[in-house]
Amino acid sequence: MWVFLNDRFVRKEEAVVSVFDHGFLYGDGVYETLRSYGSRIFMRDQHLSRLRRSAEAIGLTLPIPDVQWPELLHEAMRRNDVGTDRTDAYLRITVSRGEGEIGLDPALCPRPTVVILTKALHAPSPDLLRNGVSLTVAQTRRNLPAALSPQIKSTNFLNNILAKRESIAAGTFDSLLLNWKDELTECTISNLFFIADGTVHTPALDCGILDGITRSIVMTLAEEEGLPVQDGAYHLTHLRQAEECFLTNTSMEVMPVSRVDTFQIGDGRPGPVTRRLQARFAANRTRFSEETP
Amino acid sequence: MWVFLNDRFVRKEEAVVSVFDHGFLYGDGVYETLRSYGSRIFMRDQHLSRLRRSAEAIGLTLPIPDVQWPELLHEAMRRNDVGTDRTDAYLRITVSRGEGEIGLDPALCPRPTVVILTKALHAPSPDLLRNGVSLTVAQTRRNLPAALSPQIKSTNFLNNILAKRESIAAGTFDSLLLNWKDELTECTISNLFFIADGTVHTPALDCGILDGITRSIVMTLAEEEGLPVQDGAYHLTHLRQAEECFLTNTSMEVMPVSRVDTFQIGDGRPGPVTRRLQARFAANRTRFSEETP
Repeated sequence: MWVFLNDRFVRKEEAVVSVFDHGFLYGDGVYETLRSYGSRIFMRDQHLSRLRRSAEAIGLTLPIPDVQWPELLHEAMRRNDVGTDRTDAYLRITVSRGEGEIGLDPALCPRPTVVILTKALHAPSPDLLRNGVSLTVAQTRRNLPAALSPQIKSTNFLNNILAKRESIAAGTFDSLLLNWKDELTECTISNLFFIADGTVHTPALDCGILDGITRSIVMTLAEEEGLPVQDGAYHLTHLRQAEECFLTNTSMEVMPVSRVDTFQIGDGRPGPVTRRLQARFAANRTRFSEETP
Repeated sequence: MWVFLNDRFVRKEEAVVSVFDHGFLYGDGVYETLRSYGSRIFMRDQHLSRLRRSAEAIGLTLPIPDVQWPELLHEAMRRNDVGTDRTDAYLRITVSRGEGEIGLDPALCPRPTVVILTKALHAPSPDLLRNGVSLTVAQTRRNLPAALSPQIKSTNFLNNILAKRESIAAGTFDSLLLNWKDELTECTISNLFFIADGTVHTPALDCGILDGITRSIVMTLAEEEGLPVQDGAYHLTHLRQAEECFLTNTSMEVMPVSRVDTFQIGDGRPGPVTRRLQARFAANRTRFSEETP
């Protein structure tokens, strides 16, 4: 396995950072996860744009020029023999503040650390995609946007990890987090949608969620299907009355939800709107994927 | 410089962790900072207890038995020739989830990473301790306790870093953070106190603050001085009317605050209660410090 580290590809064993890296000391960094379909990276340029936005939000300047990122990602796939006809790729870019003296001032770190990890994509099992998953409503609330906006894809991930621990303890697929106002937000690594009265609903960005790239694609695809799409502030009562529910992220695409805590969604089987959107997504994957650097 | 890493002391250059360490990928870890007076580590066992509490709160088991920590800390000081008659020591213990596959499940990481950093303590300048510092009220709010409790001393520190960036931009000593209800909480690495009507006030723990060890000592010392001490929920209006204000943490002890944004505290000079508590703290340092492992 080859890992891109700062300025070159190194073996996994050599892919190390100083214990003085502020990514390690403080979680002071940002990241993106991407996937490919064959050699095409899904929404590559949008992921790279969001990486820049996340970095700007914490005052971090990416040390690699915009034009070089696509080539690096494709090179990372080639080196690891993924992103091929046989094997879709998972990619994770991490950019931390870099090594520096102890202290919160970003100026202590002269050079950010850049890491690109690549491996074969671990897609969810077809069984889950066919039958749906169950969720736990976490006691852990989603980060307050005014404290650390969920729109910043940062390496401060303990909020999500604490929620994930709750779903692991409950034996469910994942946790759904509410915000400080009891509104629905998102799961630990995916956005939430539900169908009510034939309308596709999803929590609005100002509820405190990641501006998911797959979320935005699914909203577009739903509109193309002639479905009304509405974002807003919703509560568990809305979800309890929903006809269907699903999650979206880059590697799962559209994942049906059949149960939330003690209540069943609809008849407990993925509904027609969810299945239509799964199919439309599958048919449009490459339309949103970049072939080459 | 010698760094303790997992099971031995290594040179700074060898003190590295894998880019797969969940401390680096997710900020999944906890830490403590300690200081010594000479060879005596201030409130050593209380800091070690809080490290255990922080670890438990995120479901992390410390891989080093309780009884071994004191010897490790003192050994770290000896190796680096700090914690001597000439040089007080600064120590930072970091325990991360450790190396593991990408994913939020803590079970992916079989062994936590332990790091102990030690160096000469950088005490605040006597000038600041004599004249006081100015604060910025940050736009960044303190973490929501239900999302990630400020009582967990975790390596998810971006909330504080974003607030620190505001004070750097404003040219002040530090930022004061409000919580989601506009209540006073704490600064980026210190607790807040203010004096009103002769009473020593400090935000209560459930406002969302770190249960500061120096904070608790100062509350004890104030009571010993015969001063009434009150914790509670306070707003900026309380601070605006305060007679005195100061910050506490392990390395600063008692730091007077002379100005908050546009308003001056009292007559802009450290007041009599602050000076009494500074003196009482100085006279009682070793009472709270452990001499030997």
